[in-house]
Amino acid sequence: MKIKVLTIFPEMLRPVLSQSILGRAIDAGQIEVELIDIRSYSLNKHKNTDDYPFGGGAGMVMLAQPIVDAMEANTGEIANRRRIYLSPRGRTLNQRVVEELAEYDELVLLCGHYEGVDQRAIDLVIDEELSIGDYVLTGGELGALVVIDAVARLLPGVLGSDQSSVDESFSSGMLEYPHYTRPREYRALSVPEVLLNGNHAEIDKWRHEQALLITRERRPDLLDK
Amino acid sequence: MKIKVLTIFPEMLRPVLSQSILGRAIDAGQIEVELIDIRSYSLNKHKNTDDYPFGGGAGMVMLAQPIVDAMEANTGEIANRRRIYLSPRGRTLNQRVVEELAEYDELVLLCGHYEGVDQRAIDLVIDEELSIGDYVLTGGELGALVVIDAVARLLPGVLGSDQSSVDESFSSGMLEYPHYTRPREYRALSVPEVLLNGNHAEIDKWRHEQALLITRERRPDLLDK
Repeated sequence: MKIKVLTIFPEMLRPVLSQSILGRAIDAGQIEVELIDIRSYSLNKHKNTDDYPFGGGAGMVMLAQPIVDAMEANTGEIANRRRIYLSPRGRTLNQRVVEELAEYDELVLLCGHYEGVDQRAIDLVIDEELSIGDYVLTGGELGALVVIDAVARLLPGVLGSDQSSVDESFSSGMLEYPHYTRPREYRALSVPEVLLNGNHAEIDKWRHEQALLITRERRPDLLDK
Repeated sequence: MKIKVLTIFPEMLRPVLSQSILGRAIDAGQIEVELIDIRSYSLNKHKNTDDYPFGGGAGMVMLAQPIVDAMEANTGEIANRRRIYLSPRGRTLNQRVVEELAEYDELVLLCGHYEGVDQRAIDLVIDEELSIGDYVLTGGELGALVVIDAVARLLPGVLGSDQSSVDESFSSGMLEYPHYTRPREYRALSVPEVLLNGNHAEIDKWRHEQALLITRERRPDLLDK
């Protein structure tokens, strides 16, 4: 899979993409991420990428021209591609949407800033607006990183054999059961006895019950679905 | 406000914190962010921070000891403080929760990795689990950055006079109206006439109608609230 990110802050994204599981996945060629600087497509002599909003009001609006030109210069003819604008107005990301996005050959992620982008850029070159949650951020970069991270971990080979993308919160429609590792006792708190006895049927039963319990308590809406 | 982040990947966070609006807010002292490397608190001779889960299963679990020690070494007696573990099992972040978090003097954000952290660390040193959305990420770092960014932009002075934290998606309970900037016509698409006539009552009315329209179409659940 190839992911292209259109941003005015490529240096904000680059270091995140070189660390941890995401960095290893990129090094191993399991996923390719290209950062495209919108500013370099500005035809404005000061390389501006924003201007005042028509109709007045606080904030600046990102110009359509650099975005549309950056998009057109970097996206060829790929049938199975999705061009996404990260925006609080978009469809809310969840694990089902992540699974859907993981099926594309190419994702193009547009990061907005300031008050947003000129609506005509959205009308011309965006397939879908996507929101990572019901809150407002200073720009789309963190949203793009969230999408890249969530999608990457579902791709073949990205999570090693010592990791797991099944048996987790949301995959089963439930929140995850509690985890314990060594030592058996820490600050007078013991690991639940059932996890120590090696009876895997009992362990599975306990974990399922715990997952059900915590989901019912914290997120009953997930069980209703 | 002071925000402390407990992580095994401080280098993943640092560059993001030096860029854009967040970087300027930190430079200006409007918000202070401290990155604490959990690994340096490991008493294990290999500085390990994780181990196999009791009861078996895929994935590793982060040890309680380095997390609890890092927390205790870096959090003194501050009354108005919240210690948060970023986790898909947590309360879902939204703009109302962001406003609530912006009231604290100190936030401490614990980033998990692998399958999660030993439940006893959560029991001992965490006030609340918080989730940025119903999807799974490879670690808590992006969640921490989302919290920092969303909270920072509400703090006094962080958004300049040419920016705005009112009149945005969710603040009004609605998604935001479309934005337009120059030129008046771009690729045969014109700016809506109403935004050009300087009649601010009409402009406000049009924007309110557009916000209502897009919210009804995309997120009727927001209007129900």
